Amino acid sequence: MGEFELIARHFARPTQRAVVGPGDDCAVIAPRAGHRLAVSCDMLVEGRHFLPTVDARRLGHKALAVNLSDLAACGAEPLACTLALALPRPDAAWLEAFAGGLHALAERHGCELVGGDTTCGPLNLCITVFGEVGDGRAAPGAILRSGARAGDDLWVSHAPQGGLGDARLALEVFRGTVALEGTAFERVRRAMECPEPRVALGVALRGLAGAAIDVSDGLTGDLGHLLRASAVGATLEADALPRSAELAAQPLALQRLCTLAGGDDYELVFTVPAGRRAEVEAAAAQAGCAVRRVGRIEAEPGLRIVDQAGGPLEGAWPSFDHFA
Amino acid sequence: MGEFELIARHFARPTQRAVVGPGDDCAVIAPRAGHRLAVSCDMLVEGRHFLPTVDARRLGHKALAVNLSDLAACGAEPLACTLALALPRPDAAWLEAFAGGLHALAERHGCELVGGDTTCGPLNLCITVFGEVGDGRAAPGAILRSGARAGDDLWVSHAPQGGLGDARLALEVFRGTVALEGTAFERVRRAMECPEPRVALGVALRGLAGAAIDVSDGLTGDLGHLLRASAVGATLEADALPRSAELAAQPLALQRLCTLAGGDDYELVFTVPAGRRAEVEAAAAQAGCAVRRVGRIEAEPGLRIVDQAGGPLEGAWPSFDHFA
Repeated sequence: MGEFELIARHFARPTQRAVVGPGDDCAVIAPRAGHRLAVSCDMLVEGRHFLPTVDARRLGHKALAVNLSDLAACGAEPLACTLALALPRPDAAWLEAFAGGLHALAERHGCELVGGDTTCGPLNLCITVFGEVGDGRAAPGAILRSGARAGDDLWVSHAPQGGLGDARLALEVFRGTVALEGTAFERVRRAMECPEPRVALGVALRGLAGAAIDVSDGLTGDLGHLLRASAVGATLEADALPRSAELAAQPLALQRLCTLAGGDDYELVFTVPAGRRAEVEAAAAQAGCAVRRVGRIEAEPGLRIVDQAGGPLEGAWPSFDHFA
Repeated sequence: MGEFELIARHFARPTQRAVVGPGDDCAVIAPRAGHRLAVSCDMLVEGRHFLPTVDARRLGHKALAVNLSDLAACGAEPLACTLALALPRPDAAWLEAFAGGLHALAERHGCELVGGDTTCGPLNLCITVFGEVGDGRAAPGAILRSGARAGDDLWVSHAPQGGLGDARLALEVFRGTVALEGTAFERVRRAMECPEPRVALGVALRGLAGAAIDVSDGLTGDLGHLLRASAVGATLEADALPRSAELAAQPLALQRLCTLAGGDDYELVFTVPAGRRAEVEAAAAQAGCAVRRVGRIEAEPGLRIVDQAGGPLEGAWPSFDHFA
């Protein structure tokens, strides 16, 4: 199977919203009047972002999910994406599963695959996503990292039965440092391999959240980016962080590592003025996910992590760094 | 050097046209009123698209140039780009040279780097470019592959002293099948490593060219895509194809291989109604490149390649296929 047949068979589908879809030198897309285009791109490398053993369908899902999560953090509505794919060889069964996982998530979010590139090389997936945000006049603009203000509540999103840290718990099982079997393992493995981007929540938070970021490299590290961009600090209540039954059954030190510095969560951490708590709860209910208040924004720079009694938590929570 | 320091040092620059530049979850860009966004993405893999020995500055140039060439083929004006980069290790000298080559070309074309991703992995470069095209009402829309009509002239662009096939000639020197030294080798090597995307010509051809495609996989293969998309055929005059002095000094069979199926040319092949030849010449003069009429579009499907005497040329001219 050659390059063009591969694209035609697995990736080319008719587009509805793009003016020109796949098959020309460029795709042509257009945000609606009063809107702008939010753009983000993430590259996934085998062995670094996913294990060689991962199911191809789940990998197709995750490659798009991590990009949609960036749109969610800006409150953008998905519009289209491009996929560049380097493959050691064209494997039809693998491609069918990969494309199936990607298209299934794309269709749920109205995110059309409008173009891309396939080539021969070590397995590497690069997706660029495009979403619509308001221009700040006719419709609320993008939620940025820089809009947090002292006095705001600090919130995180989570799955109704889940929380932060499950993806890291699954990684520790693969690393052999934690033993977990059966359904419990399947649940945390699913959190790692099939994250659910909080797109509907991000859209519902427009005009409500002052600042937001998605948790990809670990909560404390990503929250640190938001605090620096906003020139504020925060107190984070470690024991208030939502966690699944599987993680809650682990030793407290592991729970804290996974929730505070786990990585691969793809939940939103965001700030909202304290007087608007009911609106946040309503936005989450509308979006079909849960949210929890986990701290507050303060004028003093820095991140202060406290336990249930309000005492400072000892320890360092290193953020994920691809070159560290 | 960590991931964030690497991005800040080598890639983050203030943006002028993007509403939100690098440093948030998404960048925000907006085409002007009456315009739409053209999007294209290309991935370059070491050993497949470039030699491990290539100069980093030239690689930075080429990675963006091949993407700008896709915008040129649609007549789009460059607006912004994202870069995803997998590197075996963060090498500051290499990154400085690579970023320098990329930014120099980006600045010449007003194409702002608005976001991206860096990660650890086998060397892989993925750039997505965004350009503006008219909406077809207020301003001419994108030039597509599907607009060629029987009776149109077939044109190719080229450098004033150059032509098609120099990049392939350089590749054959690297492969050891051709001997070429000194200035002659440097000139064809430059054609391979530093292609000049025909952005200004593409913009000047809007409203004039019926169809266009850029020559990346070889002239006959890429022209074939255009002919099929337009449901037409063509006669191509092989001896009319422009070639450099270096290529013209080679045996005729090699000249034909390089011009007809060379690949990596990044020239435009385009169609224009026969009555508008003077306008094409004026557009090329304005864009600072040369153009040559090399054939005609016909109703009968298929590509007929003829020599100077009008006789059919024997031989197959395989197009580049990444999985062949």
